[in-house]
This record gives sequence, structure tokens and C-alpha cells, in this order.
Amino acid sequence: MFTKRTDLALEAQELWQESAEKTTKLEGVKAEKCRLEGYGLTRVEILDDRGEAALGKPRGTYLTLDLTGFWQRKDGFFDRAVRAVGGQLKQLIPEEGSVLVIALGNAAMTPDAIGVLAADSVLVTRHLISAMPRHFSGFRPVAVQRTGVLGTTGIESAEAVRGLVAQVQPTLVIAVDALASRRTERVCATVQLSDTGIVPGSGVGNHRAALNRETLGVPVISIGVPTVVDAATLAADLLEDAGMTPGETQLKQSRQNLMVTPRDIDAQVRDLGKVIGYGINWALQDLEIEEMNALLS
Amino acid sequence: MFTKRTDLALEAQELWQESAEKTTKLEGVKAEKCRLEGYGLTRVEILDDRGEAALGKPRGTYLTLDLTGFWQRKDGFFDRAVRAVGGQLKQLIPEEGSVLVIALGNAAMTPDAIGVLAADSVLVTRHLISAMPRHFSGFRPVAVQRTGVLGTTGIESAEAVRGLVAQVQPTLVIAVDALASRRTERVCATVQLSDTGIVPGSGVGNHRAALNRETLGVPVISIGVPTVVDAATLAADLLEDAGMTPGETQLKQSRQNLMVTPRDIDAQVRDLGKVIGYGINWALQDLEIEEMNALLS
Amino acid sequence: MFTKRTDLALEAQELWQESAEKTTKLEGVKAEKCRLEGYGLTRVEILDDRGEAALGKPRGTYLTLDLTGFWQRKDGFFDRAVRAVGGQLKQLIPEEGSVLVIALGNAAMTPDAIGVLAADSVLVTRHLISAMPRHFSGFRPVAVQRTGVLGTTGIESAEAVRGLVAQVQPTLVIAVDALASRRTERVCATVQLSDTGIVPGSGVGNHRAALNRETLGVPVISIGVPTVVDAATLAADLLEDAGMTPGETQLKQSRQNLMVTPRDIDAQVRDLGKVIGYGINWALQDLEIEEMNALLS
Amino acid sequence: MFTKRTDLALEAQELWQESAEKTTKLEGVKAEKCRLEGYGLTRVEILDDRGEAALGKPRGTYLTLDLTGFWQRKDGFFDRAVRAVGGQLKQLIPEEGSVLVIALGNAAMTPDAIGVLAADSVLVTRHLISAMPRHFSGFRPVAVQRTGVLGTTGIESAEAVRGLVAQVQPTLVIAVDALASRRTERVCATVQLSDTGIVPGSGVGNHRAALNRETLGVPVISIGVPTVVDAATLAADLLEDAGMTPGETQLKQSRQNLMVTPRDIDAQVRDLGKVIGYGINWALQDLEIEEMNALLS
Repeated sequence: MFTKRTDLALEAQELWQESAEKTTKLEGVKAEKCRLEGYGLTRVEILDDRGEAALGKPRGTYLTLDLTGFWQRKDGFFDRAVRAVGGQLKQLIPEEGSVLVIALGNAAMTPDAIGVLAADSVLVTRHLISAMPRHFSGFRPVAVQRTGVLGTTGIESAEAVRGLVAQVQPTLVIAVDALASRRTERVCATVQLSDTGIVPGSGVGNHRAALNRETLGVPVISIGVPTVVDAATLAADLLEDAGMTPGETQLKQSRQNLMVTPRDIDAQVRDLGKVIGYGINWALQDLEIEEMNALLS
Repeated sequence: MFTKRTDLALEAQELWQESAEKTTKLEGVKAEKCRLEGYGLTRVEILDDRGEAALGKPRGTYLTLDLTGFWQRKDGFFDRAVRAVGGQLKQLIPEEGSVLVIALGNAAMTPDAIGVLAADSVLVTRHLISAMPRHFSGFRPVAVQRTGVLGTTGIESAEAVRGLVAQVQPTLVIAVDALASRRTERVCATVQLSDTGIVPGSGVGNHRAALNRETLGVPVISIGVPTVVDAATLAADLLEDAGMTPGETQLKQSRQNLMVTPRDIDAQVRDLGKVIGYGINWALQDLEIEEMNALLS
Repeated sequence: MFTKRTDLALEAQELWQESAEKTTKLEGVKAEKCRLEGYGLTRVEILDDRGEAALGKPRGTYLTLDLTGFWQRKDGFFDRAVRAVGGQLKQLIPEEGSVLVIALGNAAMTPDAIGVLAADSVLVTRHLISAMPRHFSGFRPVAVQRTGVLGTTGIESAEAVRGLVAQVQPTLVIAVDALASRRTERVCATVQLSDTGIVPGSGVGNHRAALNRETLGVPVISIGVPTVVDAATLAADLLEDAGMTPGETQLKQSRQNLMVTPRDIDAQVRDLGKVIGYGINWALQDLEIEEMNALLS
Repeated sequence: MFTKRTDLALEAQELWQESAEKTTKLEGVKAEKCRLEGYGLTRVEILDDRGEAALGKPRGTYLTLDLTGFWQRKDGFFDRAVRAVGGQLKQLIPEEGSVLVIALGNAAMTPDAIGVLAADSVLVTRHLISAMPRHFSGFRPVAVQRTGVLGTTGIESAEAVRGLVAQVQPTLVIAVDALASRRTERVCATVQLSDTGIVPGSGVGNHRAALNRETLGVPVISIGVPTVVDAATLAADLLEDAGMTPGETQLKQSRQNLMVTPRDIDAQVRDLGKVIGYGINWALQDLEIEEMNALLS
């Protein structure tokens, strides 16, 4: 059977629900929805083995913010999104300690650049605190690593991160990456935060070694945005729209290498990158958005 | 009925052929295929009113080069593509006189950047010939205009080109732009040359005023590359693959704004832009590809 | 004698004053200084032939804003600079009518990119007003032309502008370009506004045909920022610092092609480009800076 | 006394020679000049403590290639430069074993981007050999690290490199960076190769912890290009041109933050980056330049 590919726990849960035979309750999973800063928030908790098996994801907390409304650009849309992302992130992390932000993905390929764009909006403080501890005593130490991608480095992101974690010894890692979604309407309209780590490159390429507490020895929070849907997923969506059962959707060879993105992907990825970078600052530093503007301009 | 959108005369002809009832000959159109430098070439000539009505395009010559093999990067793939594009272009243009190359599209949006990327590989000589006529007597005068797009200029490309043609008074205009194709397999794998001019922006946006001999007063050759397929076209392709008749394919609101591109669109558009720029040099100047490399590096 | 090259009327006046023999009053020139939004402002008016001859610039008004304090990033530095530039610009222009903003210079060469960067922050409205006149009735029509540079277009900026002015028929042209300064301390720390037009390319290259009321038939306001000092000017400055008279400073062949810029020229040019673009919006549209942020993000 | 700042051993030697009192032989240093592929080559060997003390650099071999002629673009200028850099590099390194190429510097700041631009032309093979050992058995394993700069990472380059060397365990490190020169005519016209390692950031910023055999545990070859001269150095050069003794050249506060670069620094850095990247391929892989073009395009 055709398996729609998704990195979103929310969608894994939806897929489970959709299966015709599953009228029973999903055991080992707790899900709830609410509104936050004008955006929708879904909280999925995978509690035990049954939940892990049902949704195909490790146990932990998955927060999915629906930013569809962001693109209507209504009053305070940017600041509200930053507070929503930052506020949720704050709940997932310890209150103190140094942080290493990992920007995964390929800056030269628009839909895969979200991590690097987010990192460019993160306030980097580790070196300043180290050089002038008294002046920067009000800041939490933050460093940033842009791993690059295998094709241009020859090095798995996980290898590069392990090497740096051993040197920098952060108390927390926050990794930002592009994700794959199964629903075209979620592309560039969703942010997922999770305390279960991440598998780099799942958004646009092959699975690589995971970044999580087991492999790095410190908690790993992941922040992901679906920026692309593969053609097979769009195909299945379209067939469903037409009232058909996708069944085994096979794409011709010549269509395998296609991706589906919003027409203004460049602008959307840039804007969401800034939301995430500022959200990280919101969670880590005691700063107003106005102040971030001044410090990062 | 759903009309697949295409800028390619070759595809307009295919669509005509596909229509079940049309077992008769297509009057007013001449089409032939051959091989050129290892690539396939289709020559469609629309000869009269009947041909115009059948294919929905103005009469004239449409040359479509199939560069699918380019991406296998076999021996001499780049030089062969340049000679193929340049050689065909040479047949469409007068042997002498100054040329204005118009780069249409949006440099900041990858699939729409092909015109600007091509222009960056065109040897610009007009000012050199004007300043040092004896030194540059061996070159044909070439100027380049990058029109930008309506959203960032407030000015229709056709307005901007008319203004400059009046000043520069070229004997020929060559306009390069992204096109829309109805077939995903032609995306970034096809170059169309035509002596009928072009409607700027047809690749990714709305139709604008035409650039052709009527509006500009000089012959207008267009060179186009399909770099994107809209989601509706992919939908129709997929349904056909599945043996269904697309009929009226309607995309949900949330999918209207999606485009389908190759995964490595950035690299593909860059490479094809260079092929076209060098092809224009090949047709206009008496230079080897090696010499272009030296002059343009 | 060595003549320090300057595009700033303020500096032309200083040079005049410095000449040993000129203890007399500078006739035909009125100059006054004041503070504006926390920045220094010098207003030089060249009133007649005597003033033109003394300063080597056409008669008209030259406003020079000293933004040295901008880089200390004190409270409201950005908004104050926008209001200062925008407020002064407003005094130089008619209250109504359509505007064509000309971005001169080379986007690919950092110190010459100020015009293009400013243009990227200008609210482009002409096409919107034309398409939806009722919705956009509150805006003044603004179009933007990025002329590119001779080396990549083969076309003088003045030719390109004349062609477009004939098509678009604006009531006012505002041209933005990089300038040359004679003082290193003014580099990236000064904005000059003038109602006398501009000679494109004076900042980094040769003099070209002028853009002014005579050549374009409409008023031309120029906005310029010195972003670079040539090595000869630095040499003269340095010799003066050392208490010597520069006399005839000759640079060796191998040093002719050098330019002097701030170390963080990339960031400085980007920031000043935004100040100018927002300043133009401030003068032309009835908008708060906050609103520009929302419309231009 | 004013000390001209230089990263070039060749210049350190020249400075030593220039000192009026030093008419004696420079002990502990061997220097020789020759021609290579049409370019000048100077080989300075610092042999012992006396040489180290005299030139202020660690003992080892310093090869300086004079690429002034490169910019005349005479026949084969690019290929000859690649062979010259690659051939000399080959003599400094072991014949076998995996290599980690370190790109130091700031990709977003033109004169500091040489390392990253070089890395973009290096053939990255480590992951391919690892995934398909039989297919890529003809290649030497090469990985690339782009360290970024302290201001945007919070991490010293040396820390980042140590972390990755521990993971990847190369047998050799090649580090590429921008250098400072004391002579304006050497800017963008010189490549220095050395087997003594490198101090990251010496080209445009403060000294950081060294990358060399002591700190990394493997041989470290450095490749550097002077891309910038500081204003004080230019000042001293200019005074000398004028026949004066620089003595204590003091730059005013307002001139401290200036750098001097060629006017077309963007193009020059890009071209030299490619020469170095290809030179590294020439030394490491058994490939013709033509083949590199095909693999890297």
C-alpha cells in the first residue's frame, strides 16, 4: 500500500484515524487542540510503546502550530507567531544552561534553507559572554552550527554535530530543519516543535543518523517546517479530491524527481525562518521583539 | 473542459493530435523531427489561418530542442547543446545588425530566473564597439535589458522594452523567458526558439502585452525554457498515468498556488541559462566556446 | 594641482574655504547648518553663476545629512534617519503626481549597490493603482527602474532612463546612486539630497550623460551616499594628517585600481539602502514606518 | 615603530632585508625564486630558531606564487595557475590518505570569502567512497568543513575544526583563508602555500587559536590569498612612494576601520577561489581540469 510520507506527528495521528478499520481509541497517545496568539495549536503526546507503534514516532511531546493565518498578514501576525513559537519552545526546555542551535539543510536550495535562515535570526552570544562576561551577564550562551549538506561536505550532519557537541558541551541542542508533510495545505503553514530530536535531511533527502538525547548525550529539541511535498503525495491528495482511492500511486520515472512548493517559496521560507529564529530568542533570552530587531539588524 | 496550459507549439500540436475526433490531417501546419548534435529537434511551422486556429499560436517557425540527454552529462553535452541552440538561432535571424537581448522574468525566483541567467552569459559589446570601434570591429553590437517584474518595478515588461527599443534602435530583439509546459518530463529539458515573439511572464504569471514585430517594429526571436509545471497540469498527467480521463480537474483552493519543479531546480536553471547565453553568442559572434569562457569568466 | 574628487556640495564648499587665498566671502552660495532628528544637516544653496563657478556644481539646493551617529545605534536611530531623509526629500518635491525612482549602480558590487538596495525598500504602487484604482486610491503612483551598469547592459543609464521616462511619463524622477567623497569619515555616514539631478556612475566609474530636468524634461531629485573613497583621496588625507601638504599626489600604477571602504561595507550599505528606500516612502506616501515594515516584508 | 602587518613569509623576509642595519646574511632561512607555468614562484624555508626569530614565523616551507600575470588573461592563464598551485601543493602533502579541507572566513564578506569559494570548487568524495567504495575506488577521500565566523557561530574556528577532526580523522588538513599583505600590489595577485598551518582570521580580524600539527595531531597545509590591505599599510606604502620614511604612521580614529581592496574584488576573489579549489583537486585526485569542469558544473 502507498504510505504517505510525513514528519508531522499530527499527520501520523490523522493517518491512523483515517484508516477505515480504526474506529477504536488510539491507545498510548494523548492529543489536544487549543488557540494560541490567534493560531491553532495541536499537542500530541506519545506516551508509551502502543503510541510509538501506532504513529511510528518515538515517545515524547509534539507541538504543531498552524500558521495558515500568518499569510493573511493581519495585525501583529509576526509578533504573535514569534510569541507562539517561543512560548511553546520555552515549555520544552530547561530554564538555564548554554544552547547549541543546529541549522540543518542546504542554504543554496530554497525549500531546504529554513534551518539556515532561522539561524541567521538567532542571537549568537557564546563568544561575547566568554570575552566580556560582565557586560553580557544578562544573556544565555547560544552558539550556532550550520552543518551544510552531505553533497557539499562529505560529512553526515550527525557526525559534524557530535564533533561540535563534544567541544562546546552545551546543556541543550535545538535543531531546525525542513520537514516533509503529507498535506499540501500544511506546506509553509506549520511549525512542529518536539522534544524527541530529529533525523536530519528527512525533509528533502535520505534518512541519516538521528540527533537525539541518545546520540548526543543532551536533550535535543527539534523545530521543523514542512516546505515541500513530493509529487507522489500531491498525486494522492489530488486523487482523493477527485473522490478516488489512491491505492498504489506510482509515479513515472520522469516524475520521481519533482517537488511541489508554493509559488513564492523564497519569501515564505525567509519569513518563517525569521519567525523561528526570533522564537528561539524569545525562549532563550529576556528580550522584546523590538530589541531583537535592534540587535540583529 | 480542462485545457492544459502550454507555451510550446510542439505540445499544442500534440494536444491537437490527441483529441479523439481528430484523425484527419492538421492543415496549415508542417512538422518535422530530426537529430542535432545528439539531441532531438522538432520543427513546427504554422503556415496559415488554419494552423493558427488549430494550435492557438501565431504563424511562424517554432523549433523545439529536446535536452533531456543533457542531464546525463555525456561527452561534450554542454558544447553540443550550445551549438544546437546557437545553430538554430542563427537560421532565424538576419546576418547583420545590432541586437537587443531582453531578459524577462524574476532573478529572485529560481524557476523564473532563466532569462536573467542567460543574459549573464551573453557577451555585451555595444558600448565597447561604440567607444573603440576599431578594436571591436570584429564583433556584432549586442546590448542587454533585464526588465525585472511588475511587482518590483510597477512597469509592464512590454512598456520598458518599447522605451528602450526607441532609444537603442536595434535591428533585432531576442527575448528569453521561462515557459509553461504541459508535460512534467519537459521541465528543464526543452528549449523552444521561435520567430513569432513572446508574451512576457507567461511562464509563471499573467499574460502581458506581447513583444513582437507588430509592437516593437523589429523582428523578435523568443527563446524559452519550461522550468515549472502547475499543480493542475501535474494532476492531469498523474490521472492519465493511472489510465483515467482527467476531464475537469479542479484543484482545491489550497493547492492553486503550488508549482512543481525539479528538486535541483537551482542548478538546472543555472546550467540552461548558460547554454542559452552561449548559444546566443554562438549565433551572433564569430567565437569558439573556449573563447567565450575566457571573455566571460 | 591635485584636485580632490567630490560629489558632495558640502565638500566642494569646504575645499573652497580651505584654499589659503580665499579669506573673502563665497559669493553666490548660501550655507547653513542645523540639527534634525538628532543628526546634523547642512543646507548649501548655489544661487547664481558665481556660486556655480566657485563650487563647480549647478545651481540648486544640496542637503547633506550627517548620519555618523547612526552607527552608534542609539534609541530610534533608524526611524529618526528615515524621518530626516524623508522629511527633507518632501521639501524638495511637488506634493502630487507620479514618481519614477531610478536605482543607479551595480547590484553585484557592494559599494555600488546602494541605489538598488534603496529601490528594494521602495513601495512600488503604479501597477496596483492602475489595476485596482479604487483600492489603492490612497497611494501615490511609484515605479522603479534599476538601470544596471554599462558593462553588463551595453547601454548608458541615461539612455535607458530617457527611454522609460518617455513611456511612463512621470511628473518627477528620484535617482539614487553611490557618490564619491573626499573625506574618509563621510563614507557610509552621509546622505546628500539635491534638486539638480545626477550624473550616473560618478561614485565608482566614469562620468556619463546627466539625468536632470534638461535631459529628462521633468524635475530630477538625486539622493546619494558616498560609499567609497579612492586611494588617491585617502593618500591626500593621510598626508594632511601627518601635517604635510599633499601637493601632487601620484599613485603608482599598481595602486590606481584600489578603493577604500569600511570593513563592514556589506552591512552598512544594506542598512543605508533601507533608510533611503523608507525615506522615499515617507516623502511620497502617507504611511508610518511600522506600516512600511508590514507592506514590504 | 610601525610594524607592517603581513601573513606572507616572502614579505617578512623582504622586511628583514629592508631594515637598514641588516646588511648581513639572513641566517636560518633559505630562499629561492623560479618560474612555474609562466608565473613567479618564491620558496622560503625557515630552517631553525634563528630563521623563526628573524621572520616571526614558525619553521617550515612557504611557497609564494605570483599570479599578477593571471589578470592579463593570456593563453591558458587559468589552467596554468591551477597546475602551479596544484603541483606545489602536491609536493607538500603525503601521497595517500583522507583529507579534510577547511574553508575559513566569512562567505558574506567578499574579501573574506576566498576560503568558502575555494571549497565550492573542491571535489567532495568522502561520502561517495563510503557509500559506493567500488565505484569510487579511483578517488581520494575528501571532506569539506566551512567553519563560519565567530560573530555568526559563537564558536572559534579552531574549536569547530578540532571537533570535526576527532570525528572524521583525516590524515591531512588543508586550510584555506584570506591573508593580510603589506603590499597593495600583492592583493589578489598572490597565493601562499605553507606546511606550517594557519591562524584563522588573520586576514581580516583578530588572531585565534592556531590550526597546525600540534593542535590537530595531523599535518596542516595552509593556502592563503591576500585580498585586503589595511589603511595603515596603504598609508605607509604611499609615504614611501613619496620618498618619505613612514616612521610612526598613525591613522585617525575615523580611518581605523577602513580596508583597501581592488575595485573588482568580487570577481577577483571568485576567480582565485576557483583556482585554489581546482588546485586542490589537481593535487589530490587523478583528474584533468576538463574533467573537474564536468564533475563540478
